[in-house]
Amino acid sequence: MTDSRRLTIQELNDRVEAIFRKAGLNAVQAGAVARVIVAGERDACKSHGIYRIEGALRTMKAGKVRPDAVPELLVQEASAIVKVNAKGGFANSAFELGLPHVIERARAYGLAALVINDCTHFSALWPEVEALTEHGLAGIVMCPSYSSVAPMGGNKPLLGTNPFAFGWPRRDKPPYVFDFATSVAARGEIELHRRAGKPLPEGWAIDAAGQPTTNPDAALAGAMLPFGGHKGSAIGTMIELLAGIMIGDLTSPEALEALGSTTLVPPHGELILAFSPEKFAAGRPGDPFARAETLFEAIVGQGARLPSQRRFEARAKSEAEDILLTASEFEQLDRLLALGLDAVA
Amino acid sequence: MTDSRRLTIQELNDRVEAIFRKAGLNAVQAGAVARVIVAGERDACKSHGIYRIEGALRTMKAGKVRPDAVPELLVQEASAIVKVNAKGGFANSAFELGLPHVIERARAYGLAALVINDCTHFSALWPEVEALTEHGLAGIVMCPSYSSVAPMGGNKPLLGTNPFAFGWPRRDKPPYVFDFATSVAARGEIELHRRAGKPLPEGWAIDAAGQPTTNPDAALAGAMLPFGGHKGSAIGTMIELLAGIMIGDLTSPEALEALGSTTLVPPHGELILAFSPEKFAAGRPGDPFARAETLFEAIVGQGARLPSQRRFEARAKSEAEDILLTASEFEQLDRLLALGLDAVA
Repeated sequence: MTDSRRLTIQELNDRVEAIFRKAGLNAVQAGAVARVIVAGERDACKSHGIYRIEGALRTMKAGKVRPDAVPELLVQEASAIVKVNAKGGFANSAFELGLPHVIERARAYGLAALVINDCTHFSALWPEVEALTEHGLAGIVMCPSYSSVAPMGGNKPLLGTNPFAFGWPRRDKPPYVFDFATSVAARGEIELHRRAGKPLPEGWAIDAAGQPTTNPDAALAGAMLPFGGHKGSAIGTMIELLAGIMIGDLTSPEALEALGSTTLVPPHGELILAFSPEKFAAGRPGDPFARAETLFEAIVGQGARLPSQRRFEARAKSEAEDILLTASEFEQLDRLLALGLDAVA
Repeated sequence: MTDSRRLTIQELNDRVEAIFRKAGLNAVQAGAVARVIVAGERDACKSHGIYRIEGALRTMKAGKVRPDAVPELLVQEASAIVKVNAKGGFANSAFELGLPHVIERARAYGLAALVINDCTHFSALWPEVEALTEHGLAGIVMCPSYSSVAPMGGNKPLLGTNPFAFGWPRRDKPPYVFDFATSVAARGEIELHRRAGKPLPEGWAIDAAGQPTTNPDAALAGAMLPFGGHKGSAIGTMIELLAGIMIGDLTSPEALEALGSTTLVPPHGELILAFSPEKFAAGRPGDPFARAETLFEAIVGQGARLPSQRRFEARAKSEAEDILLTASEFEQLDRLLALGLDAVA
């Protein structure tokens, strides 16, 4: 057994990319999927780091994602909507293909949308809002998931955990970024409580009869609850409408039906909105980026944290000191590289 | 003392408009302000009905809104942003001026934004999302308020109650609409508890020392809390950034400073986003409006309610049976019409 040791971000990227290539994913997808996994690991966001590789491989093995898909760009003249069809592949390379076009349209028209259709959606949204903020744009990203959350007042899974992410660019600093599930908790957190034999906090879930429960098994057989009561439930519904139905892609109940599982990566689309603060603020007093700093200082000045700060601190550490992986994480990467799809059930 | 009696929606509209005209508001503003007040009363949304007239008059009397303002439209070629400068008047006539233009741009480009600057913001957002849904568009509307909410982890008012509203058009039915404060409760609800001598529910507010309180006076001297913990706090911050800073208008702390009061109608801008489901769904399988009905049926089918249903039921009743006002409400309207600005402190 080897000791834990460090890898540069690029070295880890190469390893993860090689795993997906070995498993049969084409180059354009493998590169894009590896980049988001490594971004998660780099930011010490372990739930979206190399831990996610197996789920992606299992989804490939189950035939629920097309390993040879090449995303296709659909851009029309005089439109603020950029569409990319992922052709049944992972969303990530579709996003990378559409990104320069939605940036160009947002700068031209003031705001623009990138729609990703027919993708297997993997995985966190913050890499995508950050990609917009790197170009001086504000962004909102949202997508359905698969049914696991009851609408407020209901008693059965219908909505997904439907993540909602936002980013605002800051000069010479990491952006203001949040990315959260519109359920009280992520499904993975319930699974972690179950494995640890710990009861859930109150308010996370209901059982199959629609009654509040703190039992993780009962919760997994029942439904999760939206964050913030009826308000979070409404936002989750908005995400089904805008980022599912409006873009002509699957809602969370449809994604669950298509997937037939709650353990694989779900198939649905994604909606990315990009805003040009320069265009919006043109002709108005004040510099929007300087004014935003005043707001952030007021938040931090009263002891509150900005979202994603821990992630940015971990990133700075990884960039300075490389990424530390445990011996068992190294063994797991080696195993996945050696066995490809045979490594997963 | 007269009995309670009924007025048609149009009759009430004429009375409310006459009150504002008598108080010195110009015709374009008086008409638009009256329409939203009457819409609130019609929908039995009493907190946004004729109850609001006095606050608007007090704001006029305090010189915090320009009664002679005529909003100015700023539309550029090849832009998805429509701007209206309210010139220091109430937001409502600015919205009405910009509405046909943002509809036209959303239909052309797929999505568009209406920015209202330099307005006194009055009052609910749902009439505006509904105006978009009447033209077959989906809409998101948001604006700051004035500092009254502590960011999560903080201990002082900074964010506003920052409302967030969304609408989706339905065929032959009232739209799917929600409109809520991003604080746990509206400020008016704390005031109502104070007047009734009732403690607040847990989790609504903190006192001036940053400690949780259920005492309404302590809450009014302290800060309200965002809904949904750090997630609602993040959404409230996003609203400051997009609908305050990005559009070159006041944030909630700036609005409070400009107003010098928490009892008048606040000055700030507003951001309205309009989406064309037809443009977004073009070329994709399924009719988005029919698919949305399937989602709504699934929500209602498990016993959950759609937001705004009570309001739409009240509207149908008002349209069928006119609006019932109490004798004291009639007297108040008569008094406001007779005295104009002399009726308020």
